[in-house]
Amino acid sequence: MKFSLTHLQSFSSLVFEKIGFSKEDSILTSALLTRADLRGIDSHGIARLKGYYDLFKADRLNPKPNFKWQSKFPTLAVLDADKSIGFLSANAAMDRCIEMAQINGVGVVAVKNSNHFGIAGQYALKAAEKNLVGMAMTNASPLVAPTFSRDKLLGTNPISIAVPALSSRPFVLDMATTTAANGKLEILQRKNGLAPDGWIQKEDGSLTSNPNELKAGGALRPLGSFPYLGSHKGYGLGAAVDILTGVLSGANFGPWVPPFVSFLPLAENMVGEGIGHFFLAFRVDGFMEESEFLKRMDVWMETFRNSTAIGKDAVLVPGDPEWILEDERSKFGIPLLSTVVDDLNRLAKELGLPAFS
Amino acid sequence: MKFSLTHLQSFSSLVFEKIGFSKEDSILTSALLTRADLRGIDSHGIARLKGYYDLFKADRLNPKPNFKWQSKFPTLAVLDADKSIGFLSANAAMDRCIEMAQINGVGVVAVKNSNHFGIAGQYALKAAEKNLVGMAMTNASPLVAPTFSRDKLLGTNPISIAVPALSSRPFVLDMATTTAANGKLEILQRKNGLAPDGWIQKEDGSLTSNPNELKAGGALRPLGSFPYLGSHKGYGLGAAVDILTGVLSGANFGPWVPPFVSFLPLAENMVGEGIGHFFLAFRVDGFMEESEFLKRMDVWMETFRNSTAIGKDAVLVPGDPEWILEDERSKFGIPLLSTVVDDLNRLAKELGLPAFS
Repeated sequence: MKFSLTHLQSFSSLVFEKIGFSKEDSILTSALLTRADLRGIDSHGIARLKGYYDLFKADRLNPKPNFKWQSKFPTLAVLDADKSIGFLSANAAMDRCIEMAQINGVGVVAVKNSNHFGIAGQYALKAAEKNLVGMAMTNASPLVAPTFSRDKLLGTNPISIAVPALSSRPFVLDMATTTAANGKLEILQRKNGLAPDGWIQKEDGSLTSNPNELKAGGALRPLGSFPYLGSHKGYGLGAAVDILTGVLSGANFGPWVPPFVSFLPLAENMVGEGIGHFFLAFRVDGFMEESEFLKRMDVWMETFRNSTAIGKDAVLVPGDPEWILEDERSKFGIPLLSTVVDDLNRLAKELGLPAFS
Repeated sequence: MKFSLTHLQSFSSLVFEKIGFSKEDSILTSALLTRADLRGIDSHGIARLKGYYDLFKADRLNPKPNFKWQSKFPTLAVLDADKSIGFLSANAAMDRCIEMAQINGVGVVAVKNSNHFGIAGQYALKAAEKNLVGMAMTNASPLVAPTFSRDKLLGTNPISIAVPALSSRPFVLDMATTTAANGKLEILQRKNGLAPDGWIQKEDGSLTSNPNELKAGGALRPLGSFPYLGSHKGYGLGAAVDILTGVLSGANFGPWVPPFVSFLPLAENMVGEGIGHFFLAFRVDGFMEESEFLKRMDVWMETFRNSTAIGKDAVLVPGDPEWILEDERSKFGIPLLSTVVDDLNRLAKELGLPAFS
């Protein structure tokens, strides 16, 4: 089944209004949530609407947050998001980064007391759309074991870096620091499919291809998968993200990061408030003329896209797969699994809203 | 054979003076070069001294560089390193970042027209030693093929992030964005050893375990190794490093980055000057009290170090392996391969210096 982006947005917006978001916040949140569906990252889009609603019911998500900013330097700020949904706090944080960067060259914002913000790429992209370099990161539910560890201490902790170009659309790296994003595991769990070796480990740390081991004490593995293929590097990146987003902002970090699913209990003796994000933006014209930089980026993009492919595969640059899907889905609609549609219809019923479809 | 750090430094310093470095620059360069030997990254230390000398002979390394700075914002600067050895330009660039960060909260410096700078970690660490968060990156000789590509378009492009703690020594992530650093391949080539599947590919893009394929048109693979294990992420990280260090600074990028080995020709129609670096530092007290941040970092470090290990392995945090070696080698000396010692003795003879040993 395919649906238009507008349909996804209108429905989500009604849900957010119903639980107490202002009209303006509902519209903005819906647009940011469904950008994931448009860009083909189905696990982070409207399929999670029910999850956010459950967080609200568990009193972990504040529909009318009162943002508190602190800033001791014109280039640095920290935002207490007051249990906001992550979309609103992340969006405000990147806006602030952009503002600081436009005035002072660079802006850095850490956010605490927040919730999940969907796809990191869209916040980094906001900066690139203003011809700035943008970065966005977040920590997330602890599902990942460090190299040589049995414990789940890190989230899939994504890193996004976006860079503008002249005639090419922006470079947008948006990657989990694990081998596989959790969304891919969720799909395998639903289908009873097997995961490739290197994605997950059992509770005792040994390898498994059974995605259900994740719910039986197992863990995701960091990018690199195996020590001999450099999994300590994926672990190190996930760790750096946890520190910049969690330790620096005053949010929780490591095993204390609140899980996205509301049925799991919060950790004891929390070390901070909510989950944490980190954003950075800087001007390219601090280094050379903006037009020169943008032209150089075009050369970079074309060089990589035109490189010799192995077999019939095409060589892409980070962001290309999402741009391709964004074009396709803008035209032909967004495909949703029937289980997701059913879920949305149940949610509509519970909230007394018109059915999704 | 083991040697003291002082011995390595004195010898290197004599070599640099002999080719025209000032006394002060010789001492500083030697200290930065041999820090790699001390920290156990043998491929980046004194074993490369001859390589730098060869770059000098090929007129690609200027012993008396005249640094030219440009800065349009109090937080951003670009350095034209005038063909300097990378150690001196990287060190000056990070000093400038620290200075800008101390005054304005954050500092970003891009460097062009430079050469290789050894290990990225020590520049990031300079910031952490001042209780700042530090980052360092560089592009390097094109040896790495993007996912699905046969062409060598990226270097091993390392990323380093260092973060201070209170009683624990700093967190220091210092990683190539490839599965294996080139130094590890060089060791296998010398020994005629085999590489694990996933480290390298042949000229046609197919897998190989023969490290000599690298010299026959083959390439290193990005972190992740295989598309199904997320090699597009390692590629994306290496790409982001190339853009921040090369495109942004005005240096070369992609296939145009000058090779470290002086016997390889430079690319035609270069797109910039020399190789490029990128540095960033920011204050942690822009987000919370410095003492609180440092205490939180101690909690982070202890939580990860004390996690349940698989079997008898210990769970480490990024930087621990290097700190362990730094302690050991400070006490007991630095082991060098006899081939490296022979190489240094030949260099001494060529320059009319006392033998290394």
